[in-house]
Amino acid sequence: MRTLDVETPAVLVDLDVVEANILRAQRLFDGLGKGFRPHIKTHKIPYLARLQMQAGAVGIACQKISETEVFAADDFGDVLLCYNLLSAEKIARARVLAELGQITVVADNADVVAALSAGMAGSTAQLRVLVECDTGMGRCGVQSPEAARDLARLIANSKGLRFGGLMTYPKPDDELQVQAFLSAARDLCAPDVGPCDIISSGGTPSLDKAALAPCITEYRAGTYIYNDRSLIARGACAVSDCALTVLTTVVSRPTPDRAILDAGSKTLTSDLFGLQGYGMLRDYPEAQIAGLSEEHGTVDLRPSLRRPKIGEKVHVIPNHCCPVSNLTDRVIFHRRGEVIRAEDVAARGCVT
Amino acid sequence: MRTLDVETPAVLVDLDVVEANILRAQRLFDGLGKGFRPHIKTHKIPYLARLQMQAGAVGIACQKISETEVFAADDFGDVLLCYNLLSAEKIARARVLAELGQITVVADNADVVAALSAGMAGSTAQLRVLVECDTGMGRCGVQSPEAARDLARLIANSKGLRFGGLMTYPKPDDELQVQAFLSAARDLCAPDVGPCDIISSGGTPSLDKAALAPCITEYRAGTYIYNDRSLIARGACAVSDCALTVLTTVVSRPTPDRAILDAGSKTLTSDLFGLQGYGMLRDYPEAQIAGLSEEHGTVDLRPSLRRPKIGEKVHVIPNHCCPVSNLTDRVIFHRRGEVIRAEDVAARGCVT
Repeated sequence: MRTLDVETPAVLVDLDVVEANILRAQRLFDGLGKGFRPHIKTHKIPYLARLQMQAGAVGIACQKISETEVFAADDFGDVLLCYNLLSAEKIARARVLAELGQITVVADNADVVAALSAGMAGSTAQLRVLVECDTGMGRCGVQSPEAARDLARLIANSKGLRFGGLMTYPKPDDELQVQAFLSAARDLCAPDVGPCDIISSGGTPSLDKAALAPCITEYRAGTYIYNDRSLIARGACAVSDCALTVLTTVVSRPTPDRAILDAGSKTLTSDLFGLQGYGMLRDYPEAQIAGLSEEHGTVDLRPSLRRPKIGEKVHVIPNHCCPVSNLTDRVIFHRRGEVIRAEDVAARGCVT
Repeated sequence: MRTLDVETPAVLVDLDVVEANILRAQRLFDGLGKGFRPHIKTHKIPYLARLQMQAGAVGIACQKISETEVFAADDFGDVLLCYNLLSAEKIARARVLAELGQITVVADNADVVAALSAGMAGSTAQLRVLVECDTGMGRCGVQSPEAARDLARLIANSKGLRFGGLMTYPKPDDELQVQAFLSAARDLCAPDVGPCDIISSGGTPSLDKAALAPCITEYRAGTYIYNDRSLIARGACAVSDCALTVLTTVVSRPTPDRAILDAGSKTLTSDLFGLQGYGMLRDYPEAQIAGLSEEHGTVDLRPSLRRPKIGEKVHVIPNHCCPVSNLTDRVIFHRRGEVIRAEDVAARGCVT
């Protein structure tokens, strides 16, 4: 079966491109002598995580405990859960995995440390905890190397927990700040609570610049496996490196300048990421996906001399591939347009 | 169980508010002597569609054939599928429903009419087709009343099809244009192809102004059942009319001015709808959800004197409730904070 025969809209993944993307990133970190830890948030599919592990990854990263369980059940032994856990119910689930030796978590505040310690009470296992550091992203994370040291000390002194190192999700192109913050935190921690097993940075946009923060021991990235229009716009990949496309059909041409696609925000998401338009028509790159409603994509054809007809199937490279994965139940794998496999997005919708 | 004991993030629906919203809209159209046809795109849950039918709806509206099948299987006899069907596979599925008398579809171009007619070849049933009109929205639809008449004629002359009337999804607050376009199209069609069974307009934002287009026979709306921040901003509802909230937990307070929620774009969506911020914290309305990543909501607390603590659960009224439904597998119903029921979002992810 050819991909063009698939009912639309459909999420297609070119397995040749996936394999090349996996290999390129793994080789980069092998060359640097750093661990590479793919973040499964992008694909949410155990089959692809296995390919990443076979290529040499040190383990995987997950964002929520429910995601982690999907992959832990599939024998992914070394999981870094990069998210503050607070509720007793979530921590009880993490404890099950910790007792199997499968999980490292993070904390950026004393309430999380207290909750983790309480949740491990009576366990023979120790839960390894990294201190999440805000090196400039302005999301989670302690605000200074001194605060990292203080929280590390609290972890080390908390029953059931073990200080495991440092973690950051940095602003792209901010490796010097990553190096300054994390190396200082590491050096402050060393005499007090001992060495860091793991110093973890991440992010696909700056993946090629990871060497600029030599203090890290490993790097996390998710989007690199598929790539998307936001990464093309940053110069981080080429169109031909984009493995994931959304196959859509032109269902209407109400005017000479307008085409309507059968994919809207329920398929492509509303993520703009600072770009103009909601994705790129791979074969009509000048056309602009000017608007989305839930089930319609409205394409402005004025900039494009060539124009698709009603019934024509067109590939959209989405602005951001990760939430596209999270909207679809199933992904179709192909090589050169020949369908070879379909996989459920096993960790789709795992938000708790 | 209280809603505050539910693991977060979670989509909560206040059934008291839902029932009031259903009743208010139904009474409005009962008073106008027009049919009211709820669009199930918002909730995607048969249980709620049954409440809407029990209140007096003439039928339901769906956007895709896969959605329609979920509801047809649950005995919703009168379904308007407001979307161009083109592929033989989708039309074969519509034919099954047409032969049970359950479906009306739309078309805005001759290719769709030809495909529908081909798909009905050999059937004893006739598929009822409305002409979709672009009364100003700039999405699908024929561009003039004359074009509507021409397409109606084509439908009437196509084997297996029956012309059923007109449909538009208008720009909000554009009822005069709806009336001008659709009444002209109706009057042009009448001598040629006969009267319209259905003249259907819709949209929650202008629901209260439906009387300004008296030519319509029925009205479709979806969002009114839940309401959301975009409708508050339009003055179309009050905060207390919002049935759907996303319950989230504050998992970090990295700085005095910043809180991090455990709900990001995978729960709240990136829909801005022209608003500032990605939703409203119901109990901290001055705070701004300034940014979302997939699993984090970053709240700017500077405008708010009162500030939530780590571990506190807060309700978010999303900008747009429909895609929030489409992201969650399950919705928790409550009355005054007491959980009374949970329902799967049965038509979640039905995009084909």
